Amino acid sequence: MGNATARISTAGRDIVEVGKDDPRRAIHSLKVGLTLTLVSLIYYYQPLYTNFGATAMWAVMTVVVVFEFSVGATLSKGLNRGLATLFAGALGVGAHHLACMSGKIGEPILLGFFVFLQAAATTFMRFFPGIKARYDYGMLIFILTFSLVSISGYRYDEILTMAHRRLSTIFIGGATCVIVSIVVCPVWAGEDLHNLIALNMEKLGNFLEGFGDEFFRASADTDHAGTTADRSKSLRGYKTVLVSKSTEETMANFARWEPSHGEFRFRHPWKLYLELGALTRECAYRIEALDGYLNANLQVPAAARESIEGVCREVSSEAAKALKEMAVSVRTMTRHAALADPDLLLGDCHDAVKDLKALLKASQWKETDLLAAVPLFTVASLLIDVVKCTEKIAERVQ
Amino acid sequence: MGNATARISTAGRDIVEVGKDDPRRAIHSLKVGLTLTLVSLIYYYQPLYTNFGATAMWAVMTVVVVFEFSVGATLSKGLNRGLATLFAGALGVGAHHLACMSGKIGEPILLGFFVFLQAAATTFMRFFPGIKARYDYGMLIFILTFSLVSISGYRYDEILTMAHRRLSTIFIGGATCVIVSIVVCPVWAGEDLHNLIALNMEKLGNFLEGFGDEFFRASADTDHAGTTADRSKSLRGYKTVLVSKSTEETMANFARWEPSHGEFRFRHPWKLYLELGALTRECAYRIEALDGYLNANLQVPAAARESIEGVCREVSSEAAKALKEMAVSVRTMTRHAALADPDLLLGDCHDAVKDLKALLKASQWKETDLLAAVPLFTVASLLIDVVKCTEKIAERVQ
Repeated sequence: MGNATARISTAGRDIVEVGKDDPRRAIHSLKVGLTLTLVSLIYYYQPLYTNFGATAMWAVMTVVVVFEFSVGATLSKGLNRGLATLFAGALGVGAHHLACMSGKIGEPILLGFFVFLQAAATTFMRFFPGIKARYDYGMLIFILTFSLVSISGYRYDEILTMAHRRLSTIFIGGATCVIVSIVVCPVWAGEDLHNLIALNMEKLGNFLEGFGDEFFRASADTDHAGTTADRSKSLRGYKTVLVSKSTEETMANFARWEPSHGEFRFRHPWKLYLELGALTRECAYRIEALDGYLNANLQVPAAARESIEGVCREVSSEAAKALKEMAVSVRTMTRHAALADPDLLLGDCHDAVKDLKALLKASQWKETDLLAAVPLFTVASLLIDVVKCTEKIAERVQ
Repeated sequence: MGNATARISTAGRDIVEVGKDDPRRAIHSLKVGLTLTLVSLIYYYQPLYTNFGATAMWAVMTVVVVFEFSVGATLSKGLNRGLATLFAGALGVGAHHLACMSGKIGEPILLGFFVFLQAAATTFMRFFPGIKARYDYGMLIFILTFSLVSISGYRYDEILTMAHRRLSTIFIGGATCVIVSIVVCPVWAGEDLHNLIALNMEKLGNFLEGFGDEFFRASADTDHAGTTADRSKSLRGYKTVLVSKSTEETMANFARWEPSHGEFRFRHPWKLYLELGALTRECAYRIEALDGYLNANLQVPAAARESIEGVCREVSSEAAKALKEMAVSVRTMTRHAALADPDLLLGDCHDAVKDLKALLKASQWKETDLLAAVPLFTVASLLIDVVKCTEKIAERVQ
């Protein structure tokens, strides 16, 4: 009994969490319910039902499979489904007529051959990367409709009426989906992509901001393991950047289908976002390497650490500042005065790197144990790499 | 005219390439065609058709949407579809009966309410990560079947016959898919995952194997830019490892559904593969940072370079050897004598690292320009990191 109550309360907490994580999810669920109820009116309302009959179910099916979270995804699926049904339906009717001409025995054989050929060829086409990314669903529907229309033709005589009804109910279902998804609290894939890219830059900035404190405190005293673990956990936000490639690509694919909305035109340069994302990820890989030096229980000589601490903190916090500034300017789509002039944006950063390089060049290192100091050099060098990546991002943001 | 010919020949080359890339793709396409033709026999063969009537089309639909590239994916989709149809069909019939009791006016209202509630709740559940990963398709079919059965019930009286026919045709379609996909040249997701993990380790090994040559040649003379670019291109195979996370997770999800085959039992520890994959990726991130030092046109003092070259090459090639040996042992699922004893596998590697550390500790560095030599230290330090990651992988492989 207690077990069951505990389970229910856990499930309840999960539900609240998923909803809080992104309240648009709850709204999306209600939208799906609403659209489905709207479309099912075809069944309840006699004049409509007389028109469509049993094919009304295609409208219901279309809503269930086409309605996706973002407008772009819904449009992409809807258009894919609609166009594929149109072409495959036409071809299916053609195949049916061709097969009819070959007599009662030849017909099923020829039909079977057509279906086999078409299914194999279309399935193979689905492996092409370009087709897979944008038209995979359309290909599936193409196979489906062609097979259904040409095979059913063997049993029904009114094949044209059937194909026509199927097409119009799918159109009704698809159009209802698209309209509801655009009109009721729309979720734009493009906007999400835009925010994701900015957020990813910000996450890298957060890491770099905290890195100086974390690294030098951690190597100064290794007792505060508990609090260190807690704090560094909040730095690890950047980990998601490492694996966000496929999410970004999917979103960009959907964004291409979206009509202009808000500040985004129809042919917004979504490719640029992908490039920015790739550069951000490159920077994240360096940061992952840096992260390896946190909590590594390094025994770095105190003198060496102290002499380098100031500039390293400076480099890391300046890079963080630049990244965050770029994130803001991506997010707001405004061109900061600082962005127009790279020297202004990265000027402090470059100064800090220069200081760091000068320090490394200085002769004071002769006395220190090089082996123990190597992690320091590595961190310094990786920080310089991060700054280089940041520069590349800055070029692209402009 | 020439343009069209050129296009066709390009398309032809693409087709050959996609087919050559993985010949199983062509076989898969033929399998889909074959299954579809088999299932469409229901239409052509009179006794079967008398039994199922128009619901025969559900069998065709099931084949088109359920047949996936690997056995695991097909099984997962088939079972999801079958079970979801069963449960949703039962619930739909229940909802229909409940609605019937509320009279002619109340019925459509109550039905609409049920459909709305069910669609919203199930759509929301699809956002839970655990459900999304394994039962997303089942949830979709649940909404679909529930809506179709309960709404159609408003128009047909023989709702039970319909639900029953739908279930049996879906079963026929799904079973045909599963049987064909297992019997005719099966593609196992588990086997693919297994090979992918081994291949990824090998790719890292390839990079490390070539790294020594590439790095020290590149910094020795920067004239051979052309050949360097060519060669280093062949090293870049590891780049795919950086982004293989989602592929691995999908495959592991499918592999869980597969029955035992070859050397893989039903409950093969697929999670272990994911862990191995994560560790390999961690290592790949370090390698990505190392890669930044190739072709970077570094001006490293010759003396410093020469003194460190030997050991660095040693570390990198020993780590490569260890990674490749582990890859072989993962691939063949045998436990090498070397694997049982980590000292044997990584012994040479550790010796090389020790040499490198000793060299860094030596006093000969006092005279060199530290700033210019920092990249060397960084490379050395990253190589040591790579060895650490390799150790972790070795622990897991055992």
